[in-house]
This record gives sequence, C-alpha cells and structure tokens, in this order.
Amino acid sequence: MTVPINTEVDPARTPTIGPQALADLLGRWPTSDGALYRLLAARIGRLADTGELPAGVRLPPERSLAAALSVSRNTVALAYQVLRDEGMAASRQGSGTRLVPHRTTPAAVHRANGFFTGLLSAPPAFDLSIAAVDCAPQVAAALQDPGTVLGESERVQLTRGTGYLPYGLPELRAAIASMLTTFHGVPTTPDQVLVTTGGQQALDLLLRCEVAPGHPVVTDNPTYPGFIDAVYRSGARPVGVPPGDMGRLADAVAVHQPALTYLTPTHQNPTGLVLPAAERHEIVAMARRHPGTTFIDDLTLAELPFGQGGFNTGEFSPGPQPPPLAALAPRLPNVVTVGSFSKTYWGGLRTGWVRAPEGIIARLAAAKAAADLGSPPYEQAILAALVRSSHEEIVTYRADWARQRYTAIEAALRTFLPGWTWITPAGGLTIWARRPGEADSGGFAQAALRRGVAIVPGRLLSVSAERSPWLRLAFILSPDDLTTAVKALASV
Amino acid sequence: MTVPINTEVDPARTPTIGPQALADLLGRWPTSDGALYRLLAARIGRLADTGELPAGVRLPPERSLAAALSVSRNTVALAYQVLRDEGMAASRQGSGTRLVPHRTTPAAVHRANGFFTGLLSAPPAFDLSIAAVDCAPQVAAALQDPGTVLGESERVQLTRGTGYLPYGLPELRAAIASMLTTFHGVPTTPDQVLVTTGGQQALDLLLRCEVAPGHPVVTDNPTYPGFIDAVYRSGARPVGVPPGDMGRLADAVAVHQPALTYLTPTHQNPTGLVLPAAERHEIVAMARRHPGTTFIDDLTLAELPFGQGGFNTGEFSPGPQPPPLAALAPRLPNVVTVGSFSKTYWGGLRTGWVRAPEGIIARLAAAKAAADLGSPPYEQAILAALVRSSHEEIVTYRADWARQRYTAIEAALRTFLPGWTWITPAGGLTIWARRPGEADSGGFAQAALRRGVAIVPGRLLSVSAERSPWLRLAFILSPDDLTTAVKALASV
Repeated sequence: MTVPINTEVDPARTPTIGPQALADLLGRWPTSDGALYRLLAARIGRLADTGELPAGVRLPPERSLAAALSVSRNTVALAYQVLRDEGMAASRQGSGTRLVPHRTTPAAVHRANGFFTGLLSAPPAFDLSIAAVDCAPQVAAALQDPGTVLGESERVQLTRGTGYLPYGLPELRAAIASMLTTFHGVPTTPDQVLVTTGGQQALDLLLRCEVAPGHPVVTDNPTYPGFIDAVYRSGARPVGVPPGDMGRLADAVAVHQPALTYLTPTHQNPTGLVLPAAERHEIVAMARRHPGTTFIDDLTLAELPFGQGGFNTGEFSPGPQPPPLAALAPRLPNVVTVGSFSKTYWGGLRTGWVRAPEGIIARLAAAKAAADLGSPPYEQAILAALVRSSHEEIVTYRADWARQRYTAIEAALRTFLPGWTWITPAGGLTIWARRPGEADSGGFAQAALRRGVAIVPGRLLSVSAERSPWLRLAFILSPDDLTTAVKALASV
Repeated sequence: MTVPINTEVDPARTPTIGPQALADLLGRWPTSDGALYRLLAARIGRLADTGELPAGVRLPPERSLAAALSVSRNTVALAYQVLRDEGMAASRQGSGTRLVPHRTTPAAVHRANGFFTGLLSAPPAFDLSIAAVDCAPQVAAALQDPGTVLGESERVQLTRGTGYLPYGLPELRAAIASMLTTFHGVPTTPDQVLVTTGGQQALDLLLRCEVAPGHPVVTDNPTYPGFIDAVYRSGARPVGVPPGDMGRLADAVAVHQPALTYLTPTHQNPTGLVLPAAERHEIVAMARRHPGTTFIDDLTLAELPFGQGGFNTGEFSPGPQPPPLAALAPRLPNVVTVGSFSKTYWGGLRTGWVRAPEGIIARLAAAKAAADLGSPPYEQAILAALVRSSHEEIVTYRADWARQRYTAIEAALRTFLPGWTWITPAGGLTIWARRPGEADSGGFAQAALRRGVAIVPGRLLSVSAERSPWLRLAFILSPDDLTTAVKALASV
C-alpha cells in the first residue's frame, strides 16, 4: 500500500539505479508462478514499498535491464507498462521511466543487500544460495518432547519467572562456556558469554555498540553477506581485504584504525579456507598493537571440517585445524569470538553467542535489552541440555552430513562443468567457484534462476559490490538434488 | 575487564554526571549480598565497562551522591576508595573523583535508561518494578508437551526447513491476523502482520526503519521505559505529551512533524488510563492530516481490563473499552498497531507483532533479516496453535489474574499509605502513584530498595528525565506478597 505524495520531480536531481544494482535488489524475482513481466513489475513495486528503491528513482533503460536479467527487452517493457498502469511509475520523453515518489522516510532508504532481499522471496526448486541446514534429528526429538532432556523442576522454575533474560539463560551461558573451553580450547567463564538470536544478531549488536556511522570497519572480502547488510545498515564504512592476505590486513588496520575488524579464519565464508596457525599469531600480535580495534573471530562454520583444502590446482594444503584467535590470547580484551548453533544443530533455533570480556558482554546485553529484552528462554533450556549431553554427537553428525554433500557437488562440478575452477574448501557449507572468462556472474545467476537454480553472484559477497566472475554455491540439498542442480547449471 | 588507555585528562573538559542521573543508572545496585560500599563500587565499575559512564567522567561529590542514594556519606567515600584502589578512579585536589578513561568507542556511549539497567541486575525480594507475568498454565503445558497442540506433519515440515523466517511463521501470522479481526475489530490479513521478538523489537525495528538520528518522535509522557530506551539509542529526539492531552498532541505533531508518534491509548503505561472513543477519532483525523507521520497504537496491555477507571477522586470514568485506532481506519497507511503476547501468555515466549500495510511490513522484515534473520519458528508454531484454540481462555485467565492483584495492591495502598494519591487504572499491570509533597521519588526508591522493594521512580518514565514525585508500582506478585511489599513501603 503506497501513497503518492508528490509526482513533480526535478529531472536533474532524479536518483538513478544501474541495471546490475537493480538486478541484485530484485533477488529471486522470477521464482513464483505467473508471467515474467508481471513478476518483475510486482517485485519492483515491493522494492519501492520497502524503501529499497528510493522515492522517484529513475529505472534503467529497458535494454540494459533486460541484458542484466537475461530476459527479452519486451519483458522489461511490459513490466514498466504495468507499473505505469498501476500509478507506480511515470515515463517522460527523454528522461526514461521513474518510480512515482512514495511515502517513505530518509531512514528507510538504505543500501540493501540483494542476498537478504532474496531471503524474503519464495525459494526456487534448487536453492544453492542459502548455507543453512535442516534440524538435526537429536534436536528435533528434543523439541518435540522437551521432557526427554529437561527436568520437571528446571521447567517449572523457568515458567514461573518473567522470561526476560537479556544475557541469556544461565544454563546455556554455562554450557557454551564449557563447550568453548573443551572443544575449542578457549578457556571461558559463563560471565563472558552472551546468548543472541543467531550469529546475525551477535554481529548486529557488535556493530550497534562499537561502531558509529561513518567509521571504518575492516572485513574479509568476499565475506558473509549478512555481515555486509548489517554494516551498511549501521552506517559504517566497510574496507575489504582478501581473506588470508596478511600484508593488506595489517595495512588496512594501521591506516584506517577501524573500530571493528571482522574475520572468519576457519572455513571462511564463502571460500572455505582455513588460516594457518602462524597467521593467527600475527593477527593476535596486531590486536595487541591496536587496542582500539575489536577483532571478531567468527566460528560459525568452524565445526564443519571435511579434510585437506586449497586451490584445486593443489597449491594450498593446510594441516590440522588451528586454534581460534581467543585460544592464543584468552585474556586479550579486544579479541571477540562469535558463533552459532545454526550450521550444526538448526538455524531455526535462532541461537548464537558472543564470547568477550565481561565489560563488553554487559554493554552488548544492555543493547540487547533495548533491541528485544532477550531471546526466548525455553528453547535455550532445551539447547543447554543438548549442548551438555550431545554436542560432540551432533557436530559429528553434521560434519558427516556436510562432507557427503561436498563430495557430491564436487563430483558433479568435475563431471558437468569441467571448465569451471574453484577453491577447494577445507570445510563449511559453500564452494567459491568461477566460470571461464571475466564476465560478471550476475547474468548467469539470473539465467540459472529461470532454470530453477539459485546461486549467489560474487558481487553480493563483495563489500564494494564489485563485478566478479566468481559465484557462491551452497550445498545443503541432498546429494542427488545437488547433482541435478549442477547439471541444470551446465545447461544454462 | 578494562584497559586504561590514557589517565591524563584536561580538567576543564572532563564530563560530569549529576547525583540523580548516576542514581538512575545504578539501578538495583544494593540488592546483592555484601557491604553496601563494595556493591556500589562494583556497580560503578560495571557502568564504566558498558560505556554507560563515559570515559573520564567526574563522579558526583560524596555528599550529594549519598543524599541521592539515601546512604551515609561514608558509604560513598569507601566506594570511591575501592575504585581508586582498583585503578578505576583517580582523585585530585579541587577536581573531585573521576573514572580513569577506559577503552571504549563513541558509539558505546549512549544515554541509558535506568529501567533497563535495573533489568540486568539481581532482582530484589519484592519486585514492583517490572510489569511482567509468569507463564499461563495453558502455555506451560503446551511448551512441555508440544505434541498436544502441534500435529506431527506440521512439526516435520517445520524442522525440515532452514528455520529462517524474517516475516514470522505463516501459521502465526494468520493466527494473529484472525485474532485482531475477531477480538479487536481490526480487519487484518496475514500479509499485514510481522512477528517480532516481543513488543520491544517491534518498537526498535519501527525506530530503525522510520526515524533518522536527530528526527523528532512524539510520545505519551510518561510512557513505557523500553520505548524511551530504544528512542535514545536510535538517536531520535523525543517530544513528550501528557497522555490524553489532545490539544498538546495536535500541537506537537503539527509543530514537529515527527516521523513517528507513539501512543498507548488502551491501559496506558504507566497510568492505566483508556482514551475515550471521541479522542480516538480525533487521532485518526490527525493521521489523515499528517500522512508523513506514522502513528503507533500499542495494544500490549489492552487485553487486561479490570473495570471502571479514573482518578481516585472520582473525576474520570470511561465507558466500555473503545476500539483500537486501526479499527476506526483499517486502511489508513500511517496507522500502525503493535502488540505482544508477553502480558497475557508469557514474556518468555518473546513474541510480539506489528500490524501495518504490506509495504511497511516488507520494510520491517528486511530490517529484521539484518538484525537477526527471524525469530525462532518452533515456539511460533506452538503459539499459533494456542492462539487459534485458546486465545479467549488465556486472556480471560490473565485478566482475572491481574484484577485480583490490582484489588490487593489497591486495598493495601488505602490501608497502609493513606497519604498517597494515584490514578485508578482501567486496566494493565501498573499503578501510577505519588507521595505527599513535591520531592522527587528517586530518593524514596533508593530507600525502598534497601527494604527489599523495587519500584520505578517517575523520572525514569519521563522522556526528559524530569524530576517527579510520581512513581510506578507494577503488581505481578501474589496478592499476599503485594500486601507485604506495600507495608514495607509504608515503613520507609
């Protein structure tokens, strides 16, 4: 529902959007039923509603948008006509088609990441875009019958309280502290743990607490698109460094003096690479030299190793999994660890955590209280019991699950897409691959979508939205479906 | 854990904090075990860690802080000594005691609301500060054995998915839409509903999407302290209007042209007042005149009526509960309704909602995806089943529960505190009361805390932190405990 407030706009001041940027925002637009031009018009209208397309924006010329979306020019022309018919757009000789300004506010106009835009749309037949897992059977059983893992007295005590626990349920904080100490070699007390609504909230709270608008934030690039989205919403200015490039990382930290540096040294998203121990020691030394910068080590994918890794040319071959940064310097106040149960137990638990000095945890908890007063404690109680009793079993189950899928997609890539290259991941849930040639992968992603396969073009994992022939393939479908999906990609 | 980075500060530029403001931030500092001066020192140190006390701040003179906290001057002197001994503070002749600057960032220094600071501390023996309920028995039973309300096929379908649902579980969106249509007379489709982590997140997301830093926000004043906290963190500038003062509301909206106006017309927090139907029609007319302002109607306490209300002098006596704003104008795009299951079902479900036009819902969902990727779906499925089958039963249970407690505290106030006056609430979970005289209630709240009773001084519910003899009493304890608590207040 939209209210035109002013249809007169000075053409010289009309904002514009390029065809690639619009294609990114459109996300999975053609995956619903219906004529392509109607789907395209509906999706553009929705982007106007959400403020992702600013009021009065001039849309790209029909021909260039058609090329970016790999559709006929006629499809775009008809979509623009639908928008005009519905009073959403206006065309004028010589100034193209623009959206009629909508009722919106400056704060609503943000740079949205196409990945999250996609998450809000209907999923395609074969989704290789989201690196998310189904519910582990141990977790599903406990959710269905909490009495199997949760004592009567614990349950009664919990439901008698108000249920407001901004720091998280004490039992879960203790279980996470123990898990970090035992399985990751990071000595941790419960007071050093904050429970969050997934790893995403851990990153959002850290950005809200530690970074002011306009401040630089250094990050792996390419990186987890959820971090990019949260950075842009925070108003911070991201500075990207290729994963593992220690010289550029040191330069970026020294030059920009960022409030935050975001790293995923273990099974980096999207490459799946592992940073060797020596480089980890270098980062810790960097953290000592720069006490004003908080270094985030994101362990979200760290528990999913599947063997030796490196470029499939064989250049790179790390040894056993090196320790998290905080294991090398457990008391260094500006090394913060974040993680999640989403990639091992289930994303639907919506449970992540931060491990940091008590002072930072207190600050984050105060921010969490203002954001949502705390995550739901009942599922935290169930999860605490599972972490205590079955962490190794569940993580082993999931690592096998991921390894099987990796083996299937890797075999399919070798068979059906012999011209592609990719980095052999040491673990995680994604492959970072590229097609032959230098063309941006956006057009290929659009074409693949209409064959029913969603992938993430590399540009959306770049903090500067750089054109890139690379793309990310997440392998969470069954091995058979993965094979079918890669076959479909080969036919694009 | 804190790292002094610079102990040299120009005294002329040292930030200061007044004794009342520090007392507010200290919250429930004396409720743990231990010597008062140690508790005080520990709490001040924590506020430095969280950034709520800015780096290098000059603490109030011992005598004035002692008066604000209703403790002896010696207690404050010893607390300051502990801070000096621990290297957290420094004193210099003629410039008082100041905190040694800590490692922190500009973004971490915010104006924190003492209410939320309190929420993070240990609860006292008798907590009249938090308006939160225990878990309704119907809800506790369903959480303990989800199979009683949730079909096998629904559960299996849910746990096979990724669990990322930024808009909320479709079944719960439908159940909330139906509940609003049936019980509140607000015709609503599922597409107009966003599920949030409690009503608090609904407010936080609206502020993040609709308001830019520095923009004015008009609000009832006094109001829900969680809204005040979220407003200050958003950087917006609150403009307070006494609840029900239609002339000042119209003026504030016309003069400030705010992005948001926040109102709780039904069982206003903290007064419990109900805005009559005629005034609601006025607000809807105001919304039509100001399409650039979003009017929020917060229904969080609307389902807890307990009879006729007004000043206990008998001046004010409303009729039956008038309809929500959106019932008067279901299609007006700038009237947004928010609510929560926290005050009826259980706060520990951490489930609230927004009802708005689809475009605003899409914008909020995109913001929620970046904030936490969505709330946990499993409890949403349980809740959806309960809303469908038992909403009237649960709400009736809770309204009876609240009415019994209201009757008990009201009788105790009449018996033990005959000199106090208060507004007779028409519903809700709080009484807005005042002691005789004009003294700010902050000192009384501090003294009450040391008798084991927590109350909220009116200043913390004021958007301008104005000194006030008023205070808020939440009645969520058992009737017997409420009587004991009021007796304890009478002995302060």
